[in-house]
Amino acid sequence: MLKRYLPILTWLPHYNRRLCGADLLAGMIVTIMVIPQSLAYAILAGLPAVVGLYASILPLLAYTLLGTSSTLAVGPVAIIALMTGAALTGVAAPGTPEYLQAALVLSLLSGGMLTLMGLLRLGFFTNFLSHPVIAGFLSASGILIAATQAAHLLGIEAQGYTAAGLGINLLGNLPATHFPTLAIGAGSLIFLVAIRRWGKRTLSRLGLPENLATLLARAGPVFAVVITTVVTWQFGLADRGVAVVGDIPRGLPPLTLPGFDASLWQSLLVPALLISLVGFVESVSMAQMLAAKRRQRISPNQELIGLGGANLAAAFSGGMPVTGGLSRTVINFDAGAQTPLAGLFAAIGIGLVTFALTPLLTHLPIATLAATISVAVLTLVDIPMIRQTWRYSRGDFSAMALTILLTLGDGVESGIIAGVLLSMAIFLYRTSRPHSALVGRLPGTEHFRNVERHDTETASQVALLRIDESLYFANARYLEDTVYSLVASRPELEHVVLICSAVNLIDASALESLDAINARLKDSRVTLHLAEVKGPVMDKLKNSDFLDDLTGRVFLSTYAAWEELSREPESR
Amino acid sequence: MLKRYLPILTWLPHYNRRLCGADLLAGMIVTIMVIPQSLAYAILAGLPAVVGLYASILPLLAYTLLGTSSTLAVGPVAIIALMTGAALTGVAAPGTPEYLQAALVLSLLSGGMLTLMGLLRLGFFTNFLSHPVIAGFLSASGILIAATQAAHLLGIEAQGYTAAGLGINLLGNLPATHFPTLAIGAGSLIFLVAIRRWGKRTLSRLGLPENLATLLARAGPVFAVVITTVVTWQFGLADRGVAVVGDIPRGLPPLTLPGFDASLWQSLLVPALLISLVGFVESVSMAQMLAAKRRQRISPNQELIGLGGANLAAAFSGGMPVTGGLSRTVINFDAGAQTPLAGLFAAIGIGLVTFALTPLLTHLPIATLAATISVAVLTLVDIPMIRQTWRYSRGDFSAMALTILLTLGDGVESGIIAGVLLSMAIFLYRTSRPHSALVGRLPGTEHFRNVERHDTETASQVALLRIDESLYFANARYLEDTVYSLVASRPELEHVVLICSAVNLIDASALESLDAINARLKDSRVTLHLAEVKGPVMDKLKNSDFLDDLTGRVFLSTYAAWEELSREPESR
Repeated sequence: MLKRYLPILTWLPHYNRRLCGADLLAGMIVTIMVIPQSLAYAILAGLPAVVGLYASILPLLAYTLLGTSSTLAVGPVAIIALMTGAALTGVAAPGTPEYLQAALVLSLLSGGMLTLMGLLRLGFFTNFLSHPVIAGFLSASGILIAATQAAHLLGIEAQGYTAAGLGINLLGNLPATHFPTLAIGAGSLIFLVAIRRWGKRTLSRLGLPENLATLLARAGPVFAVVITTVVTWQFGLADRGVAVVGDIPRGLPPLTLPGFDASLWQSLLVPALLISLVGFVESVSMAQMLAAKRRQRISPNQELIGLGGANLAAAFSGGMPVTGGLSRTVINFDAGAQTPLAGLFAAIGIGLVTFALTPLLTHLPIATLAATISVAVLTLVDIPMIRQTWRYSRGDFSAMALTILLTLGDGVESGIIAGVLLSMAIFLYRTSRPHSALVGRLPGTEHFRNVERHDTETASQVALLRIDESLYFANARYLEDTVYSLVASRPELEHVVLICSAVNLIDASALESLDAINARLKDSRVTLHLAEVKGPVMDKLKNSDFLDDLTGRVFLSTYAAWEELSREPESR
Repeated sequence: MLKRYLPILTWLPHYNRRLCGADLLAGMIVTIMVIPQSLAYAILAGLPAVVGLYASILPLLAYTLLGTSSTLAVGPVAIIALMTGAALTGVAAPGTPEYLQAALVLSLLSGGMLTLMGLLRLGFFTNFLSHPVIAGFLSASGILIAATQAAHLLGIEAQGYTAAGLGINLLGNLPATHFPTLAIGAGSLIFLVAIRRWGKRTLSRLGLPENLATLLARAGPVFAVVITTVVTWQFGLADRGVAVVGDIPRGLPPLTLPGFDASLWQSLLVPALLISLVGFVESVSMAQMLAAKRRQRISPNQELIGLGGANLAAAFSGGMPVTGGLSRTVINFDAGAQTPLAGLFAAIGIGLVTFALTPLLTHLPIATLAATISVAVLTLVDIPMIRQTWRYSRGDFSAMALTILLTLGDGVESGIIAGVLLSMAIFLYRTSRPHSALVGRLPGTEHFRNVERHDTETASQVALLRIDESLYFANARYLEDTVYSLVASRPELEHVVLICSAVNLIDASALESLDAINARLKDSRVTLHLAEVKGPVMDKLKNSDFLDDLTGRVFLSTYAAWEELSREPESR
């Protein structure tokens, strides 16, 4: 029991020196790599840079104890930071204590929801987010984030969390572009794109071992940060108007208590739910992908608890909502992390930096951070996936398109909610007109096939109707329609047999429709029969009065129904 | 084309004297019967009584031209009146010109939506309302309506559209009970219940023909109205504080123009949609039931246009939202109506009453109307259906219970919206863990069955996995889980074959999951195959890159896959 909720107990006893060495190295590498992005994502959410560091310490520790993935690295990530910023600006002004407080409440709510969902084993909730909706949401978010960063690259002001708002601000303030900032930003951007595209290959050609080349290429942002920080510091660019991270309080994360304010909690409830779901989906799919590479398993419900614990830790240590981050996890995996202890070592590393080394970050230009984010988030814009969805299914594409348009035009929340509702509606529509076929007997056999596609034996007084879908509220009325049309068009009909071989479920609505069909056919003196009803469906029907009221019989096979009904003398 | 949208053109040419006689009689009977309920439902909606009459004239005429049911009678009905009242009190104070105006706008919006849905053939929208949600909603509404009427029966004030609000008002004002009113109300109530229960039987025993006995028993409300009106008038009870209908302006329905006020329209949009959907569902199921009794057909999409036209007519003739009413339709059907012209005759009859005879209604006590409504709506409370749903399915019952609780506690809109969302969620949950089974070969045959239930041949390097559900976003991740568990638990596995005989649909999410499964199995050096893919599903897959990337093959039958893969020499 304890092992189920504390996965660390299963693997810690087998921990050894070899594993420890690997984890220690990975932890150190992750420490160095994630500091710039932690600062950047806090700024993206409208929070002080240091909040990003705080959110990378205790949350990582909590996940180490509770999580099931051996390589997942938890901390602030771009999408969640964007959603956090959008949610917080709705309830407080950036830079105020209320804004900081709201970030804690958001972490607390999100952590609570995730933990609760994990304990209640509600991981299936995330199934509501279909792939096209997520892909559309990530693409639109990538564009929104890049737009927010464009302002930092240009050294101008541009606030807002919709494309229109950001666009207008950007264009309006364009004349105020600050050229020293632009030089640093554009320089970093070009450097990062170049190292991303050619770095690994070039370093390999220079004779470096494959692993080291990969690592150095990944470390591009660290070099950009170091170089631009030194330049800014040496030339005193901060005094000439280049925005820098500035003074970061030195010390361990503070102990914070998210306050209770009913109206604040209420207005953050929906954002917290969406942040939880999106964060979990992103995190768990990545964890699954990496686990599969090593033929390991993760437990989605325990992952909910792990991420929930991480967010609760963030709420009580001055942080912001967190989840498993793509880039930090990939770095961890590639650096050879073997167990979640790698995360513990990274947490200690980041803790040490926060405790002692923050003065080194004072002169780090915001524009450099903006460049690292921009390069990272543009990979979220998944044009091939959009094109592929269009080719594969117009219905799925429409859900994706709505998500993209609303996310850009009205904000992250409307986008994702509308996408989810539309994809449910599309699915219900698809199953609301189930395929059904009149079947007849292949002469001389016990097989029955669609009368329109095969030469079959039929009898004018018997209709054998095969239903190719579970029967539930969305198609119950369609079933009624189908049967009534059939009866209205064939006055000589005496028996209707519904063949239920593909019916996995009959819900209460469909049961009522069957009742209605039975009663109305009785009024028209037609008998209703069932055939090939599956065991679990039959068990449920026995809990109702339907079988007692049924005018006809339940046949085990279509053949049995045919033998019985087609031989009856015609009564009319 | 014209015939499709004006069904009257199909049947009017065949009209004859016999049909006309029957329709004329039915029209006259309906006229007398529906006047009290028309007044009562207008009062229930917080509107002047005469609005109920107006809403029974032109709307009925519009439906005659556009509708497809030969017996449906359109006008104000209890549920729609309740929903109208709840919606209007949100935007205006009862008794003000704004309230009247809002009623017209609501009719206009509802009429526009219904017509549009009909033209776009969106009748399937109503499939979203599952039977348990509707039954729960009707039961809760019945209770709410009875509570509003209790106040009229007691002669006290009690406003509100939630159980708590009404209950508190009722209890608080109970000491102010007006006994003359109570006498009239309780007397009418007892009379109506008695005639409903024993009227027909007693009259039959007295030697009246069956038909006449039925008709007279149905006419109970008319007798109650006549008797109490005469008593009230003779004893001058109105002056002693008994609330009466009062002066009703004589004359034809006025021409009204619903004004355009953006904020009013916006706040009435959701109520109008819900009123349209609920009204349509109620109306069309009743029309279908009665049509089936005569082996006739109705067209649901044309019914939308018919009801849409009726509501537009209400909007321009001083009315309120209308739909096909249960009691007026049953009266029409039983009175022998043969074509929609019976509705025309009833419209003319009600028009004549409104034009000339409204002074007769001046002394009609409101308490009598309240008694007729109470008796009618308590049949909406469907305890057997609630019990049956509980017995049949806890999931469906929970949607029903939520609908009932929220309708009573928070109002009609929250009730129905929450019910719809929960029933969708339940369905997605049910299909999110599709049944799947590892199958093996029945020795010596080409049949494959569940390995856990039958003695079958299997091969350690091949897993044959049969999926018993369409693959879509709600179960895509579950499929991944299932396959990864399988692979993680059987290290000797080389081939996984997904048997898709029961898969009717693969949406973009499931396609991506299949892609992911394919890629991750490749990482673990396991080959993925498909078998028995249905034609339409295969056509869609050909529109994607999946088949090119697939590491294995697509087999026509499970047997072919088995033959090919089980004979391969084990490669590891």
